[in-house]
Amino acid sequence: MTYGSKAIIGNCGEKTVAILGATGAVGKEALSILEEAGFPREQLRLFASARSRGKRLPYGGGTLTVEEATDDALIHCGADIILGMTGAAEALRFAGAIRESGAVFVDNSSAFRLEKEVPLVIPEVNAADIAAHRGILANPNCSTIITLTAVAPIASLSRIESMVVTTYQAVSGAGTGGLLSLEAETEAACRGEALPPPACFPYPIAGNLIPQIGDMAEGGYTTEEWKMQKEGCKILHLPELRVSCTCVRVPIRRCHSISVTLRTFDALSPEEVTGALAEADGVVLCTHPMPILAEGREEVFVGRIRKGVADNELSLFCCGDQLRKGAAGNALQIAGSI
Amino acid sequence: MTYGSKAIIGNCGEKTVAILGATGAVGKEALSILEEAGFPREQLRLFASARSRGKRLPYGGGTLTVEEATDDALIHCGADIILGMTGAAEALRFAGAIRESGAVFVDNSSAFRLEKEVPLVIPEVNAADIAAHRGILANPNCSTIITLTAVAPIASLSRIESMVVTTYQAVSGAGTGGLLSLEAETEAACRGEALPPPACFPYPIAGNLIPQIGDMAEGGYTTEEWKMQKEGCKILHLPELRVSCTCVRVPIRRCHSISVTLRTFDALSPEEVTGALAEADGVVLCTHPMPILAEGREEVFVGRIRKGVADNELSLFCCGDQLRKGAAGNALQIAGSI
Repeated sequence: MTYGSKAIIGNCGEKTVAILGATGAVGKEALSILEEAGFPREQLRLFASARSRGKRLPYGGGTLTVEEATDDALIHCGADIILGMTGAAEALRFAGAIRESGAVFVDNSSAFRLEKEVPLVIPEVNAADIAAHRGILANPNCSTIITLTAVAPIASLSRIESMVVTTYQAVSGAGTGGLLSLEAETEAACRGEALPPPACFPYPIAGNLIPQIGDMAEGGYTTEEWKMQKEGCKILHLPELRVSCTCVRVPIRRCHSISVTLRTFDALSPEEVTGALAEADGVVLCTHPMPILAEGREEVFVGRIRKGVADNELSLFCCGDQLRKGAAGNALQIAGSI
Repeated sequence: MTYGSKAIIGNCGEKTVAILGATGAVGKEALSILEEAGFPREQLRLFASARSRGKRLPYGGGTLTVEEATDDALIHCGADIILGMTGAAEALRFAGAIRESGAVFVDNSSAFRLEKEVPLVIPEVNAADIAAHRGILANPNCSTIITLTAVAPIASLSRIESMVVTTYQAVSGAGTGGLLSLEAETEAACRGEALPPPACFPYPIAGNLIPQIGDMAEGGYTTEEWKMQKEGCKILHLPELRVSCTCVRVPIRRCHSISVTLRTFDALSPEEVTGALAEADGVVLCTHPMPILAEGREEVFVGRIRKGVADNELSLFCCGDQLRKGAAGNALQIAGSI
């Protein structure tokens, strides 16, 4: 199945939507999906930090003015849905005002993902969880969304016992600053000049990779790697699932790719798995899942499906646009399914 | 332990060495290590295809002239050791003449790696196998060398049952053509021009990755992925070892990085493993193994050592220069240990 932007925003069409963090990489992506879907300008409000106040963004043949996000502005913004496209600190800062506004908060940050009463949703995987929300719904981590969209159809054939997940994450996953660093370094290298000092990342990223994303956390895993474990258990309703994850930043502008080797409780053939993936929503089967295929697409590209060499083991490779399916698009799908 | 080039070439110093395939990416790397080690120009002969005949390469303050590789030239070249730095077809083509010459053939190609009577050697791992040679010694695949240099010290603590291996392989692994493709595409992108048509790889590689290296082979694995499995069993003397490998080309000039999650027979702590790796020859422990650290180095950089979330599981990340440790350097280490 493939998606148009109208299908992504679903039931949003009749509602008023506010974007908190409208000027960031993910906020801009949300705006672009809404514009593509023909979402009416009059039903849209944009909020960001004081720095962006008054900024005018082109939208639907006209412009929209960015308002400063304050408690008062959010409480009275009249939105049915507020899309949180900021980091966790801002999401926590404004959650109270959003609750008071009466809007449903669909938050892309990590602030509420593991809260018991907050559904954490990939619509293709656990849309049924949406109904239980109490005003907040959380959007999973980008790599988690891409991986689980590919893996969930397998989980419906047999319980998954463990997964080894290794990622190839694009620089735009670190925001606009990540893109600027890669561009500046690449241009310097092309001109034969010394690389500029690292800005967004602790090391050069052009011509290099960095095997750490997020901060170091318990057990030698990073915060990003724990998200795959903890969010994976919650979304798949598999509390016993064990995930060994390694997250790596690579010199690619956009789209995260992920190598997955998993062990299932029952033996599955690659043919059965391919059949289930061919039927699955939001999945495109292909020979070589790659960033150049996935860019700008809502679907997750999946290929290289094969039996692992150990018992009950399967491997696959997948790739998705982490700004779109991995963030803004998935959040809009959630909003459109309320 | 760290290496100087003199340590790499070991006992070669007294011998006459010929390089077959002296003008390719790996041949040039061998020449550069020999030069760095002060290996005498008079003891060195260079062979390549007819196209390169008469080409003069700078060496040790003078030049060396490339000779055409023919059966006759090789039979009478007077070398004690012939380093095969070509592909498998040329290695097979000239193996008879090399045998007739009386030289020991240290071959980097895949031609003889899995032959029973040919030792397949990473000197830090199985140097004892060298003694059994009958005129041919094989250099393993580049990713296999880097992975097993990092993994073998763990195998000495407990038998390894299975490994999930995912690679980030540099374009120069595909030879000079891979480098030229990445450079041409990157420069076009910097100038805002359309990318040139793919040359070395089937898709663009700048800003992209390609989840296939080598040809597709049995079970949905590629020839490159099977090398990790089959060569791994032979080098570690673990015929039962099971390896699920995924090989991916990334837009990096040089150095292969590898994410490894393995299961051991006995439970090992990350501290024990770190201790064993700290003592291991050819390994440098570091926080972030990365191409910018490994380039031009003979050692394999290892880090991110941690317990996996499944029982008896361990994960690590490693990076090595695939032209140096992964090819020319390892071959010279073998030659220097005969």
